[in-house]
Amino acid sequence: MARPIIHHRTAEFESIVEQIRADLKQIFQTSGEVLVLASSGTGAMEGAVSNTLCRGDRVLVVNSGKFGERWEKICGAFGIEVEEITVEWGRAVDPALIRQKLDKNPSIRAVLMQASETSTGIKNPTAKIAAITRERDDVILIVDGITAVGVFPLPFDELGIDVLVAGSQKAFMLPPGLSFAAMSTKAWEFNKTSDLPKFYFDFKAAAKSADKNTTPWTPAVSLVRGLSQVLKMFVGEGLENMHKRHAVFSSATRSAFEAMEMELFTKDEPSPALSVAVAPPDIGAGPLIKTLKEDFGITVAGGQDQAKGKIFRVSHIGYIDRSDTVAVVSAVEQSLKKLGHGFDFGSGAEAAARIISENL
Amino acid sequence: MARPIIHHRTAEFESIVEQIRADLKQIFQTSGEVLVLASSGTGAMEGAVSNTLCRGDRVLVVNSGKFGERWEKICGAFGIEVEEITVEWGRAVDPALIRQKLDKNPSIRAVLMQASETSTGIKNPTAKIAAITRERDDVILIVDGITAVGVFPLPFDELGIDVLVAGSQKAFMLPPGLSFAAMSTKAWEFNKTSDLPKFYFDFKAAAKSADKNTTPWTPAVSLVRGLSQVLKMFVGEGLENMHKRHAVFSSATRSAFEAMEMELFTKDEPSPALSVAVAPPDIGAGPLIKTLKEDFGITVAGGQDQAKGKIFRVSHIGYIDRSDTVAVVSAVEQSLKKLGHGFDFGSGAEAAARIISENL
Repeated sequence: MARPIIHHRTAEFESIVEQIRADLKQIFQTSGEVLVLASSGTGAMEGAVSNTLCRGDRVLVVNSGKFGERWEKICGAFGIEVEEITVEWGRAVDPALIRQKLDKNPSIRAVLMQASETSTGIKNPTAKIAAITRERDDVILIVDGITAVGVFPLPFDELGIDVLVAGSQKAFMLPPGLSFAAMSTKAWEFNKTSDLPKFYFDFKAAAKSADKNTTPWTPAVSLVRGLSQVLKMFVGEGLENMHKRHAVFSSATRSAFEAMEMELFTKDEPSPALSVAVAPPDIGAGPLIKTLKEDFGITVAGGQDQAKGKIFRVSHIGYIDRSDTVAVVSAVEQSLKKLGHGFDFGSGAEAAARIISENL
Repeated sequence: MARPIIHHRTAEFESIVEQIRADLKQIFQTSGEVLVLASSGTGAMEGAVSNTLCRGDRVLVVNSGKFGERWEKICGAFGIEVEEITVEWGRAVDPALIRQKLDKNPSIRAVLMQASETSTGIKNPTAKIAAITRERDDVILIVDGITAVGVFPLPFDELGIDVLVAGSQKAFMLPPGLSFAAMSTKAWEFNKTSDLPKFYFDFKAAAKSADKNTTPWTPAVSLVRGLSQVLKMFVGEGLENMHKRHAVFSSATRSAFEAMEMELFTKDEPSPALSVAVAPPDIGAGPLIKTLKEDFGITVAGGQDQAKGKIFRVSHIGYIDRSDTVAVVSAVEQSLKKLGHGFDFGSGAEAAARIISENL
């Protein structure tokens, strides 16, 4: 990405875009177009709403954490009525609830959700929810896959998701500044009647330009170039191997935390994008996170809102190798020991290393 | 920009943003905030409209080239009525016309224009137009400064511009992917009643976050870091010297073209961002541009729409030094000679070199 900038209206750039389009289709597991936008993931989330819905429409938002709230705010800004399913933090949404809500409110036009909710570490049952929306011609499923695409299976065409959004800075291991959006045929049908204003995030304009291997507005050239390299790596590794890698790192980390007798914050099926544990209450998350940063140079995230000071979150996406995962677990052990917490020292690193060596 | 990505919710990143905010205020010549968005310039243009106007509002757009049309399309997408002043390509808008239109249509709420219109090379009289809108409490002036900010004087506070938009890939010499927007107090007053939907480009949210040296959505971290370096260079060089450099390169190039008896496409005051000449009709712009690219590795832009095949455009913004300017002129001379055009060979390079050495 540090190479000289090439102009975007050139054959050289167009051939990069052509390759990216093909590779992204593989990663999203779709035969349709995956749009590439110059924005953070939130921009693609806004586009998912503004390109499919109409003013005054009613939608159902799954609020299973911090990012569920974002769907509500976007819909609010565009004059869309929001019905909410609030899920206890650390739990996944129950698909039966979604079916009930849709049955009771036939005016609902879309279900909006997170495939992987980073604030709590859960994985929502996207496949089961897609099975419900897929039956209905008048309801689309809009999925935030920002920490899901490339991390665990989410086959777009096969499941029947209608809009799937991702961003460059998560599984794609790039700096932030690019976002992605796949649209189903059903979503494009919704697009025909959608009357919400959009210009920069006009998906129809983006699709039309993509057809010519370009973008309607000036693309983030250096990031697009970086993307073409990352996608080459992905295609080389293979989607299944990528998914497996995340699953093993996540399983190893959770087993390590359990071996250390720490409570997992994520009660339902966890997202392999990250592992979330409740810090030992005698220590608290704050001092643990501080020690990890200062003594080991390791950044783990704390909790937000109701989970603040209680939990810590370890990411498994990005340039992370098998030894990194053990290193993080060992740093957590050493930090806890330094902070005076009593536990079976070494049990965590041992558990993590065992699972990784047995599975990768 | 190739350094490791730092997380944006850290003290390190916040101190970078703090410095950027101070430096951008110097470059935009404003005491107010300059918002930094993760998008191309078109995103900030959309935000300029969606954050100040209301559905059904009437505006006046100065269409003096390709980018004037973009204002119209954005307004159209947001349900805003557009009154247009069409300016002959190569000419600047007459401020008297704007005054007439505003007097005749008191319902017009904004004038939208390009400070520098890249498709034709002209500089519109922003100061004179701002003097007209500044008198009126109910009209704001929205200026696309994408190829103007940092290139020639456009003092935001002093002139009384209300919204001024720029992008990272022009005078800021960065890859595309960041855009900027300054807002006047009057524009913020308009913002209070603005009912157009916005979320990703919500300027109020951006300003609130800027106050805390952060951004509401994930910023384009690598570009923001690059920006902090570029702004250090700018502050080191000084705004006046930056403006002078562009003015001299532009004057040198135009004098060179005149010495070679080429017609300048830009009839009114030219933008120092670029020089636009009509290619000798016996050669045409296409073969000239092709030869420059193939024999010299020099990229100059052709014309769009009605100017296609007729003109060529030489940029003066970016990493361009005094010898580069002479090199481009000389390459044009050598290409024209190779293509069989008869003229006083060497007169162009001589003229350019003389003006540069006398003025820089």
